[in-house]
Amino acid sequence: MTDAAIRSRVENSFARQGMMQHLGARLLRVEPGLCEIALPYSCKVTQQQDGFHGGAIGALADIAGGYAGLTQAPDGMEVTTVEYKINFLAALRDGELRAIGRVAKAGRRVIVTRAEVLHIGINGKETACALMQQTLMCVPKSY
Amino acid sequence: MTDAAIRSRVENSFARQGMMQHLGARLLRVEPGLCEIALPYSCKVTQQQDGFHGGAIGALADIAGGYAGLTQAPDGMEVTTVEYKINFLAALRDGELRAIGRVAKAGRRVIVTRAEVLHIGINGKETACALMQQTLMCVPKSY
Amino acid sequence: MTDAAIRSRVENSFARQGMMQHLGARLLRVEPGLCEIALPYSCKVTQQQDGFHGGAIGALADIAGGYAGLTQAPDGMEVTTVEYKINFLAALRDGELRAIGRVAKAGRRVIVTRAEVLHIGINGKETACALMQQTLMCVPKSY
Amino acid sequence: MTDAAIRSRVENSFARQGMMQHLGARLLRVEPGLCEIALPYSCKVTQQQDGFHGGAIGALADIAGGYAGLTQAPDGMEVTTVEYKINFLAALRDGELRAIGRVAKAGRRVIVTRAEVLHIGINGKETACALMQQTLMCVPKSY
Repeated sequence: MTDAAIRSRVENSFARQGMMQHLGARLLRVEPGLCEIALPYSCKVTQQQDGFHGGAIGALADIAGGYAGLTQAPDGMEVTTVEYKINFLAALRDGELRAIGRVAKAGRRVIVTRAEVLHIGINGKETACALMQQTLMCVPKSY
Repeated sequence: MTDAAIRSRVENSFARQGMMQHLGARLLRVEPGLCEIALPYSCKVTQQQDGFHGGAIGALADIAGGYAGLTQAPDGMEVTTVEYKINFLAALRDGELRAIGRVAKAGRRVIVTRAEVLHIGINGKETACALMQQTLMCVPKSY
Repeated sequence: MTDAAIRSRVENSFARQGMMQHLGARLLRVEPGLCEIALPYSCKVTQQQDGFHGGAIGALADIAGGYAGLTQAPDGMEVTTVEYKINFLAALRDGELRAIGRVAKAGRRVIVTRAEVLHIGINGKETACALMQQTLMCVPKSY
Repeated sequence: MTDAAIRSRVENSFARQGMMQHLGARLLRVEPGLCEIALPYSCKVTQQQDGFHGGAIGALADIAGGYAGLTQAPDGMEVTTVEYKINFLAALRDGELRAIGRVAKAGRRVIVTRAEVLHIGINGKETACALMQQTLMCVPKSY
């Protein structure tokens, strides 16, 4: 697949994700083996102390890793998340999150990825927010 | 703490979570060492194939485990999620999800929990949806 | 497969594991969806404080989960560990460890298991030692 | 602490690990925030197909991450593994394994590390074998 085809494959899937549209996430970067997604701070993504909710951080990391994997899945296939594990490094508010997913190993059936989530403060300051490690499986595309 | 105090502690924190309010999650059950939370299906929680988004499932499991832990944290303390790991067992749509978090071990500093996420179809059929294992840390309450 | 065939399948594989033979592990129980393995304390399994080494605990949990999965894998197939995650609950010495693996969900390609590791002191006291959650994949048997 | 003090701190702890001595593991490299450990192939570390046992791979990754963390723990403290998660990328035999642990974030109470395990074949060929992500906690030194 060409880079343009890979990018459009990810864009089409991303546009269909009700949850990501709803939370205001944006696809920033798609390259072979890499995907970066941004999530702005809003009242839709907070926990009880007004920081970004771990659920929002996890969702962002999950799909950054998943779409990094999709860039390397065979044509006509999709990827599904088998499992992931995420460590939270800091609680942060305001600004936005950026999750960068990278393929660590793309096998025929299983793809392993890692993602890092950064927080970009309203003053531009970058802080490490979370680290994820994920297992994807290739499945036939069903839509 | 009395059971009523424990329940009100969890209710107060839950009501402050913008993300859970926004997605329409409901607190179903709070007991010492246990918490159950429901999340109805809506376009706010879907992925690209119209099933529940892994991010929504992960968020629900995370807070069910976290609040199970909060029921056993010392007075004046909160819990924060250090990390969790989640396996997705089935992709499901419609109806609602129920996440049941249970404390596996409550230490002085670290609390380990597990959660299972069930899907309840509109016909009442129950399906196992996800399994989580989580590490919490007790921290001073800051709000 | 009959229960006897399942048990012999696990026994045959277990006997081939140099590491388990070497550390003195014993197969205690094999039932459909369950496997229990014991590991006695010795200088072969200690860490720097003379407790059971996390690596020994992890190895035991990994294979208890793996053999629980093998009891439900199709005939002619083996299982391979895709990944696992383990929480350590207590550091313990003397006596022996017992790891009990249980299948949580057996799919066609992926099997999810959980294991708990208990410590049995020389006085018979039981203590929870570790909790694991694991992903297995079915692969053709190659020996 | 000086680099020499950090190295000797790790060497002293490593020498006390009965399991690592028994399996023939060697400490290759200790730097601030990094530790590399080698494990040669032998009948003490095999699984049923004569490849390196997942338990041996996990043990190696666990201590490479743990000692990377120890290089950054306050004086008089030790680290203990709270949990880890490991993905296996390939089954390999002969030659040796090398696990390189790196600190991702060193907090006051919690240290997060990642490790990669490489296989070095007898012909010198390097193959990615496993990826780990780990949570450590600082505890007072007790020996």
